[in-house]
Amino acid sequence: MNEKAENIVWHETAVTKQERRKKNGHQSFILWFTGLSASGKSSVANALSHSLFQQGKQVYVLDGDNVRHGLNHDLGFREEDRKENIRRIGEVSRLFIDSGQIVLTAFISPYREDRALVRNLVEPDEFIEVYVHCSLEECEKRDPKGLYKKARKEEITHFTGISAPYEEPEKPEVVLDTEKHSIEECVEYLLTVLNQKQLI
Amino acid sequence: MNEKAENIVWHETAVTKQERRKKNGHQSFILWFTGLSASGKSSVANALSHSLFQQGKQVYVLDGDNVRHGLNHDLGFREEDRKENIRRIGEVSRLFIDSGQIVLTAFISPYREDRALVRNLVEPDEFIEVYVHCSLEECEKRDPKGLYKKARKEEITHFTGISAPYEEPEKPEVVLDTEKHSIEECVEYLLTVLNQKQLI
Repeated sequence: MNEKAENIVWHETAVTKQERRKKNGHQSFILWFTGLSASGKSSVANALSHSLFQQGKQVYVLDGDNVRHGLNHDLGFREEDRKENIRRIGEVSRLFIDSGQIVLTAFISPYREDRALVRNLVEPDEFIEVYVHCSLEECEKRDPKGLYKKARKEEITHFTGISAPYEEPEKPEVVLDTEKHSIEECVEYLLTVLNQKQLI
Repeated sequence: MNEKAENIVWHETAVTKQERRKKNGHQSFILWFTGLSASGKSSVANALSHSLFQQGKQVYVLDGDNVRHGLNHDLGFREEDRKENIRRIGEVSRLFIDSGQIVLTAFISPYREDRALVRNLVEPDEFIEVYVHCSLEECEKRDPKGLYKKARKEEITHFTGISAPYEEPEKPEVVLDTEKHSIEECVEYLLTVLNQKQLI
């Protein structure tokens, strides 16, 4: 604050992202999981986070559990709220990246425009879009929370895949097919991709 | 998702806060710096974060630089916006705590009610209020960004200490006096407190 103080130089600047990455021994970036409800986003994200954590990486999952009732509890499901929901998740992810962590986000995030907004918030190599592909039929069969059933009865409106669109990613960095592959296989594949990209 | 799959058990749960803390070798918590503009909040927070980083801790500073133009860029300076600004910073801090990091926040945060809200968002031992005390006269003399000058000319309105109140913490965990003590002394003191509390 006092520009004359001699201890100014070392304290005014924050620890940089590069310094953090060097210390942690890996890059920091977002793995943005997108896909229908019940496609397996959270399951794969959590499984991968366990694996990365066991390898000593700094990794964190953002999903409905820790975001919807906290930071975004003021948001509903109108279009502008959904946009703002994704924007805030993107901004929080950016802070986590800056802090040197790998962030895994698991949200349906059905609109291309919203996902593009997050991609543009960060550096080109910091955003990896993971399309968790699973047919609507299979998702509806899984229906672990009974949401599809409610959506079919119109007890829930604007439900992605039933009464609201899901815009498939056009050029996702990764596509996972959770109908053909187990969670474990998806995790193995993602680890291979991250290694190939020299991110971990 | 599929409750019949045998690989469900290990992946459904997130890595816990306790597991992260154990791995990082320290507790995760917020050091909430509050005080007048130019009192030295950011300087002390950044200096402390450097010191903790060099000790191998996972630590991150949230301040105007990384929050105001990002997550909270949609907020102005009306009362409800100021509240929402602090609430979001609290919620983001909570996510960082959950991820195992030490979070240092440097915002004027002039209202007791707003700071109490954040304190109540987290566990009792996760919030350490640090009152960065410095007289208005001294802050105005420092005025590194010329803000007090503008506030006196009413080019800035609702400026804390001039045209808006600063509500002093009633029971802060730590009080620093940046008129009497150097940044370095404040950092030393904070490190002592954190060690005594067995947080680092």
